[in-house]
Amino acid sequence: MSYPKVALIGLGLIASSMFWAMRRAGMDSHVTGYARSQDTRDTARRIGLCDEIVDTAEDAVRGADLVVLAVPVGAMGRVAQAIGPCLKPGCSITDVGSVKAAVIEQVRPHLPEGVNFVPAHPMAGTEHSGPEAGFAQLFDNRWCLIVPDGASDEATERLEAYWQALGANTERMDVAHHDQVCAVVSHIPHLIAYTMVGVADDLSRVSDQEVIKFSAAGFRDFTRIAASDPTMWRDVFMNNKDATLEILGRFTEELFALQRCIRTGDGDTLHDYFTRTRGIRRGIVEAGQDTDAPDFGRGGKKD
Amino acid sequence: MSYPKVALIGLGLIASSMFWAMRRAGMDSHVTGYARSQDTRDTARRIGLCDEIVDTAEDAVRGADLVVLAVPVGAMGRVAQAIGPCLKPGCSITDVGSVKAAVIEQVRPHLPEGVNFVPAHPMAGTEHSGPEAGFAQLFDNRWCLIVPDGASDEATERLEAYWQALGANTERMDVAHHDQVCAVVSHIPHLIAYTMVGVADDLSRVSDQEVIKFSAAGFRDFTRIAASDPTMWRDVFMNNKDATLEILGRFTEELFALQRCIRTGDGDTLHDYFTRTRGIRRGIVEAGQDTDAPDFGRGGKKD
Repeated sequence: MSYPKVALIGLGLIASSMFWAMRRAGMDSHVTGYARSQDTRDTARRIGLCDEIVDTAEDAVRGADLVVLAVPVGAMGRVAQAIGPCLKPGCSITDVGSVKAAVIEQVRPHLPEGVNFVPAHPMAGTEHSGPEAGFAQLFDNRWCLIVPDGASDEATERLEAYWQALGANTERMDVAHHDQVCAVVSHIPHLIAYTMVGVADDLSRVSDQEVIKFSAAGFRDFTRIAASDPTMWRDVFMNNKDATLEILGRFTEELFALQRCIRTGDGDTLHDYFTRTRGIRRGIVEAGQDTDAPDFGRGGKKD
Repeated sequence: MSYPKVALIGLGLIASSMFWAMRRAGMDSHVTGYARSQDTRDTARRIGLCDEIVDTAEDAVRGADLVVLAVPVGAMGRVAQAIGPCLKPGCSITDVGSVKAAVIEQVRPHLPEGVNFVPAHPMAGTEHSGPEAGFAQLFDNRWCLIVPDGASDEATERLEAYWQALGANTERMDVAHHDQVCAVVSHIPHLIAYTMVGVADDLSRVSDQEVIKFSAAGFRDFTRIAASDPTMWRDVFMNNKDATLEILGRFTEELFALQRCIRTGDGDTLHDYFTRTRGIRRGIVEAGQDTDAPDFGRGGKKD
């Protein structure tokens, strides 16, 4: 049921974690890898990533039963154009992009008839990037959203089984809904964290040194988020513009309402608001998507 | 050099952690505790918090060499008014509030001559609150900012030694600067996290269930921050209004600039911005205020 030959295009955190997770799962697929940068390919060879690292995307995909596009969202179309003519008839192709409408629009035109395109989005990551950042456990108990968008049930189920073998839970979602959910739970939080860290950096009176020295919970968490890969995130915002701008509008509207409470001294409204948000946290812990252990920013544990 | 008798007023996360840290440090101080709520006092007695739990703040502070005000910032003035007449001549009194100008303004008028008021702010916390949330390691390698504001060197040094024995590093800071640094590294990040979680909660199309189910890094970190104690945080914003509103203004100005980049498709500016913020993260890790281990929201570790 797995894929005898897999091609990983792009060898960053996600693709390298996929490789190690495939090995951990005992899959005997032959895995070919390609990255645009010579440096990345050299590193991949040095650390034993993939069975074979090749120097062109075209070579990587020839004969592959599954092709994984694991490049920044903005590069998906270019890669699809290059590899389209080399794809094996009947093969499956998927991606790991954080936005789906734009990726589908950019990739689909370059795919030949008879190829199964099953877009996907593993919702997992760390603030580290590159081929050495990957590890086999990255997807364990995380969600991989599958956006069939017309793919056959057979091809979809096969990709779902593959992601489940890598440790993920899978769920199908339609394109627009995917892009909106992700704007809320991922894209806007990242933009906000980047902004707050940028503001701190700008404050000359509060020197960098002090912001770093006294960084407290809150800001420290933001800096971790704001250390995420710049290219990946630029592409997310360039390619999920509508949902991002809509959620941003709601966010600033709400922030202004709280700002007004601060200015006018309306503590009751603030208290009610802060009480409501506690419940969501409880839900996330109960859903097994985070632990309830106190996190005070240094991996410490209560006793 | 330590204090023979210590009174803890308010028995939440900070005070209970102070007690366990004092015990860990082998201090033989006699510790008396008081909390306004009968429930909290009962819990404290049940879990063995403090040597003695008493039913009024006045009884708690009688004869104490150090009185610690560990109540929400908005309650400091009321407590000071109650205990002022009962303070032992020459004793030290401190607080653990996250804002300093407002606390000093509210507390100082109620203190008799000859008492040493040394405001302080241990920059440590978790998203949990209450007497059972405390643990001895909370302050280890964290900063405790000391704001002498006219206190004698002797009283200041004694409090610094006490906090160092509890595991913290100490640094002196003036009042206004303290309130501004904390607005940047703590208060505004909390307000933003509360807002984002509130926005997610409001979106009926993206049902709660989905926001929780698919919560990704970013949002998940925000929910942890936004689960912090509502009363404490209401009081912070009510009492650090000027610095909060100023930093909020800078934040929204900068957020609008990035929003404009998204709308106009200016990916270069976004990329530059996202690259700059990575450096701050590096500084925090190098300063030992966080670890570089990948955090993907479930306390997991690489390998």
